[in-house]
Amino acid sequence: LKTEVIAIADEILKGMVINSNSTFISACLGKMGVKVDRHTVFPDDFAILKQAFTDALHRSDLVICTGGLGPTLDDLTRSVAAELFSSPFIFNEEIANDLIRRYGPSLTSLQDQATVPEKAVILQNSIGTAPGFLFEEKGKMLALLPGVPLEMEAMLQDALIPILRQKLPDQIGYHSERLYFCHLKETALDPTLRLIQKQYPSIDLGIYPGYGTLLVALRSNPLDLSAAKEQITAAFPTYVFTSSSGKIEDALIDLLRSDKKTVCFAESCTGGLLSHKIASIPGASDVLLGSFVTYSNKLKQDVLKVSKSSIDQQGSVSAQVVQEIAVSGIAGPSGGTKDKPVGTVWAAIGGKDSAAEVFKLNLRGNRQIIMLTTATELLGSLYRKIRYGIDLSKGF
Amino acid sequence: LKTEVIAIADEILKGMVINSNSTFISACLGKMGVKVDRHTVFPDDFAILKQAFTDALHRSDLVICTGGLGPTLDDLTRSVAAELFSSPFIFNEEIANDLIRRYGPSLTSLQDQATVPEKAVILQNSIGTAPGFLFEEKGKMLALLPGVPLEMEAMLQDALIPILRQKLPDQIGYHSERLYFCHLKETALDPTLRLIQKQYPSIDLGIYPGYGTLLVALRSNPLDLSAAKEQITAAFPTYVFTSSSGKIEDALIDLLRSDKKTVCFAESCTGGLLSHKIASIPGASDVLLGSFVTYSNKLKQDVLKVSKSSIDQQGSVSAQVVQEIAVSGIAGPSGGTKDKPVGTVWAAIGGKDSAAEVFKLNLRGNRQIIMLTTATELLGSLYRKIRYGIDLSKGF
Repeated sequence: LKTEVIAIADEILKGMVINSNSTFISACLGKMGVKVDRHTVFPDDFAILKQAFTDALHRSDLVICTGGLGPTLDDLTRSVAAELFSSPFIFNEEIANDLIRRYGPSLTSLQDQATVPEKAVILQNSIGTAPGFLFEEKGKMLALLPGVPLEMEAMLQDALIPILRQKLPDQIGYHSERLYFCHLKETALDPTLRLIQKQYPSIDLGIYPGYGTLLVALRSNPLDLSAAKEQITAAFPTYVFTSSSGKIEDALIDLLRSDKKTVCFAESCTGGLLSHKIASIPGASDVLLGSFVTYSNKLKQDVLKVSKSSIDQQGSVSAQVVQEIAVSGIAGPSGGTKDKPVGTVWAAIGGKDSAAEVFKLNLRGNRQIIMLTTATELLGSLYRKIRYGIDLSKGF
Repeated sequence: LKTEVIAIADEILKGMVINSNSTFISACLGKMGVKVDRHTVFPDDFAILKQAFTDALHRSDLVICTGGLGPTLDDLTRSVAAELFSSPFIFNEEIANDLIRRYGPSLTSLQDQATVPEKAVILQNSIGTAPGFLFEEKGKMLALLPGVPLEMEAMLQDALIPILRQKLPDQIGYHSERLYFCHLKETALDPTLRLIQKQYPSIDLGIYPGYGTLLVALRSNPLDLSAAKEQITAAFPTYVFTSSSGKIEDALIDLLRSDKKTVCFAESCTGGLLSHKIASIPGASDVLLGSFVTYSNKLKQDVLKVSKSSIDQQGSVSAQVVQEIAVSGIAGPSGGTKDKPVGTVWAAIGGKDSAAEVFKLNLRGNRQIIMLTTATELLGSLYRKIRYGIDLSKGF
C-alpha cells in the first residue's frame, strides 16, 4: 500500500504556519501499521491541485488531503476532486439538517457546505461546518479533510480511520519500539547503534534528538527488536525514561504519582515553562502544587526571600542565588558576559528533607531553545534523581 | 523563478516530528520576495531521493533541501546530489581545520564531514559539524542544508541567503501587508473581506486563524494595499494589534513598555503559560514581574489567600475565586460538569488602582488548545483593555 499526505495551504508555503496536520495524520496511520511515503504542500490553485491529485493517485493507493474545505472564498479542493472523479454535486439534506441543528438556519455557508459531490462518502465534521469526503475508484482512495487542526483530527479519528480499518484489513503492521533517553547526546549513542545495526541487519534504526531528550526508534521482527532494545538500554541504564507520549514530563508525572510525591517550582529564566510543561499533561493536578515565577529581582527578594546581597554580589544567575530559587539563567539574546555567556543556567533540585543539589548547564541556541532545553533537562534531572538516585552536583 | 523546499526526514513521515524547517525556509525566502511553490517530505532512501531531486530540478529553478547531512549512519543526501551533478568527492582542508578548531582533533565524524562534493559551493555550519552545499548547473540550483533546526536556520540566513541575493538580483518582491486581530472570529471578518476582494480584484487575500488571534495577509500593489488595509482596520478598530512577529505577547510587551507598566500574573489552569509567553520574548524583563502559578488549591489558599469557603462553595473555577486569582479554568479532558463543562475559564484583569474586571471564556478543544487559547485571549484582553479601554466585564 502506497500512501501519501497532501496539505493544501498557502499559509504554509508562505512560511506563516507550520504543517502539523501531516505529522498528525502520519502518526495516526502509523499506529494502524500504515507507512506514509510522502508529504506534500500545495497552494490553493485549481490547475496545480488537479495535477497534484492526478499524480498522487497515479503513484499511491491512498491519498489523504487536508485543507481547502472551509467556507471562505479561497477554497477549491472539493471542486477539483469532483472533476477528477466525474462526480456531480447534489444538495445533501442530512448535512444541512446537522448544520442547522448545530448553527441555526441563518448560517451563511449552509447552502455551500451542504452541496457535496454525489460520488463521495461523507465524513462528518463534528466540530466545524465543512464536511469531509472519501472518493474511491479502481482501488484508489482520495480523502479530503478540513485544514483546521481540531476539525481535521476529530474527522480523521472518528470518521475516516474506522472506514480505513474496514477497507484495509490486511495491512500488516510492522513491529516497532521507541526508546527515550534524557541527558544523552546523539554522538554518545551513535557507536552503540552502529554495533546494533551490524549485529541485527534486519533492524530499521533511527535516532531523533529533541531539545534535552533523544528518541531511538527501532523497527523489525519481534525477536531482533527485543534483543536490540535490551542491549541499548543496558548501555545507558540510568538515562532511560519511560513515557507513552515520549515527553519527559509524562514520565516524571507517572514517577512522582507512584512515589506519592508532589513538585513545586521556583523559576526565573524559564518564566513558567517548567510548571506549564507539567500542567499541560492531563492528571497533572495529582503531583503539581504550582510554581513561583520570580522573573524580576524584586519578586525573588519579596517572595522567595533571596537576599539582596547574594544578588548584588553574585548576580541572579549564580550557584548562591539558585540555592534559594530552582532555576536561573541567561536566555539571551542580550545579557551575556564573558564569565556568564548566554546559555549559562544554574539550577538546584532538593526535597523536603534533603539539601539542594546545585548544578550548571551550558546551553547553546536562541532564547526559545535555551528555555526549552533548560526545562527539559531539569525535568530529566528530577526524573533521574528520583528513579536512579544520580548525584546531580557531580554533573551528568 | 520556480522554487521548492524538500525535507528529508523519516521522523516527519512517521509522525514523530513536525516539519518546522520548511515553514522557516519559506518565511525567509518570502522576505526576499521569493515565492515557494511546493513543500515535500521524503524518506532517507537513495533511489527515492534521486528521483525526487531529478523531478524537482526538472520543475523548479531553485530547490532547497534540509536533512540527511548529519554524521549518523542513515544519511544519504550528499551522495545522491553528488551523483546527480556528477561530482567527485574531495577532502576539504578548510572544513577539517574549522571542525578541529571547534571540536578538537578526536571528532569521530571529522573525516566524513570534511569529505565533500568537489563541484558544490560549501555553506559553513557555524553551529554543528555537517557543512551544507550549493550545487548549480544550467541555471538550476540545489542547496543542501542540515536538518537540525538551529543549524539549518543559521546556515540559511548566514551562508545561503547572501549567495541567493547575489544570484537572484532581479526577483521582484511583491508588496504585502499583515493585519493582526485578537478576539475576532473568521466568520465575523469574512463579509468585509469579500467586499474588499470585489472592490480591489488585484489583491491576493488570505485569512489565517490562530488560537485566539487571526491574521489577514494581503498582497498587491502599494496603492490598493494601503486602501484595503485602511478599510479593514476601520471595520474592526478595537480588535487590531500591532506586532512585528504576529504574536500578541510581542504587542503587549511593546504597549506595556511604552506605558511604563509592569505585569504580574496569578495562574491556575494555564499552569505558567501566560507568564512563559511573555518571558519567551527578548526584553520581557522590562515589563514582567513574574507569576504565581497556584495550580493546587493549597497554594491558592496559602499564597494568594483565596478563602477556603469561596473554593468550597463556588469551586475554584468561579467568578468569586477568580477575583482573587487571575485565571482559573477546566482544561480537560476530565473535570467538566454540566454547569461547568471542559473549556469553562474564569478570568480577572485589574490594575493597582482599579477594581478587577471579571469575565468568562467558553472554549472548545483539547487540553493544549484550551490552555493556549486561554493564554492568548487573556493577553489580548489585557492589550485591548490598555490600548482601547474596552470594558472586559461586558464581554467581547
